[in-house]
Amino acid sequence: MAETFVREKRIGFHECDPAGIVFYPRYFVMFHELMETWFNEGLGEDYATFVRGGHGLPTVKIECEFLAPNPLGDVIALELAIAKLGEASITFRYVGRARGKECVRATIVSVHSSLEPLKATPLPTRLRSAMQRFVTG
Amino acid sequence: MAETFVREKRIGFHECDPAGIVFYPRYFVMFHELMETWFNEGLGEDYATFVRGGHGLPTVKIECEFLAPNPLGDVIALELAIAKLGEASITFRYVGRARGKECVRATIVSVHSSLEPLKATPLPTRLRSAMQRFVTG
Amino acid sequence: MAETFVREKRIGFHECDPAGIVFYPRYFVMFHELMETWFNEGLGEDYATFVRGGHGLPTVKIECEFLAPNPLGDVIALELAIAKLGEASITFRYVGRARGKECVRATIVSVHSSLEPLKATPLPTRLRSAMQRFVTG
Amino acid sequence: MAETFVREKRIGFHECDPAGIVFYPRYFVMFHELMETWFNEGLGEDYATFVRGGHGLPTVKIECEFLAPNPLGDVIALELAIAKLGEASITFRYVGRARGKECVRATIVSVHSSLEPLKATPLPTRLRSAMQRFVTG
Repeated sequence: MAETFVREKRIGFHECDPAGIVFYPRYFVMFHELMETWFNEGLGEDYATFVRGGHGLPTVKIECEFLAPNPLGDVIALELAIAKLGEASITFRYVGRARGKECVRATIVSVHSSLEPLKATPLPTRLRSAMQRFVTG
Repeated sequence: MAETFVREKRIGFHECDPAGIVFYPRYFVMFHELMETWFNEGLGEDYATFVRGGHGLPTVKIECEFLAPNPLGDVIALELAIAKLGEASITFRYVGRARGKECVRATIVSVHSSLEPLKATPLPTRLRSAMQRFVTG
Repeated sequence: MAETFVREKRIGFHECDPAGIVFYPRYFVMFHELMETWFNEGLGEDYATFVRGGHGLPTVKIECEFLAPNPLGDVIALELAIAKLGEASITFRYVGRARGKECVRATIVSVHSSLEPLKATPLPTRLRSAMQRFVTG
Repeated sequence: MAETFVREKRIGFHECDPAGIVFYPRYFVMFHELMETWFNEGLGEDYATFVRGGHGLPTVKIECEFLAPNPLGDVIALELAIAKLGEASITFRYVGRARGKECVRATIVSVHSSLEPLKATPLPTRLRSAMQRFVTG
């Protein structure tokens, strides 16, 4: 049975637009922050060390639906799972829930890359193993 | 023959990540800025007046592919067209090109809404007419 | 003896520039987030309710020194205190510390305002009382 | 007689907060963008090449006053001058004006640095010479 990684987040002032709700590009920043926390706390791998070691996870594809707006102060439960784990690519599945309903869901494909030059590279074995328990069906 | 709306943009320091390339959520901010400029210069409608009049264009769906990274200083030609124009919904098609190749392309569906409460509302007639010449296919 | 309000924060990818350290305007976003948390947890006043009630705390003056850079992954202890509490104005004192040393310190003056029109207004009594225990000197 | 470098900028949606005015940390992003444009167009030095060459201009000190709010759609004339030019340090003076009045003014001290490790370094001679005509008083 696959595991999901969940963290709560309160919507801040800087994330809101003149309508008082999250400006949508900010959701992708929240998903990225969740992914970094998942590295540190879910995988037990230090994300900063990973990046400074010349690794990257550039995003190549996104599909995202915004189902309900999140106003300032909303507490969202953000959830990360892996829909598909390839040699170098990771298909993340993110869901955000607030007040008992789904607000946002996204599929984000990242490809593990060496950074100079930017080039797809198989995931390090230890990291790929650690990710396995978050792979859903 | 449909028209596209194009503006050039130089990638700035604040848009780049530690790898020195655009952090992907920033592309959505660039698309939004292009859309605002398109209102003002392409449609001849003042975007700020539109927003202050209680109108909004919340995004409900995104599909996006990132085809090549854009480093600091890159000049991108950003292009906006409308793939489909409904009563209240607008399906935008964005493409970014640099150094002769496509770097990013996105389909972004927005729904015209009154802001309090947030509710889908048919586009004002004059605005919808002005948009017609940007509708492709 | 005055109290300070402290929270730890780990520097994320989106806060870093191409040199891999915090892009300085992001510190002000961090200070603002800390101030919002201080409302909710330090003052026991819901910040979102405060804003939706037509209140604002626009910033009128800043003095800030950046003493040491914070790289990706750095854990900063961010500290808020009030240097001076006027009828409508609050002089905040922020300090950020990492690895045993001060990295950033700022004095930020905000003025309590009603939002439409934007106009300085005395702080609500209950809120001003709650703030008293954070006033230093 | 010293020269100032001025560019106009229209306030965008992503720069505004729930009150519909610029969220103040965004002014520092605008000043940074102006500084990058000044490199390219005012000094005739490519800013991206400067950064990729291992140079940086980290900010060490800021003093800033926010005199009037800028709502969505406001057109600001942003002005850059140099108050003091040292061996490695540059004291920038920024002013923003809209609708005939000053909205924001800031003094920002940056220090030219080599990036790895981050260390103050005298400005390259050609660059320092190019900057001379922007030094006021």
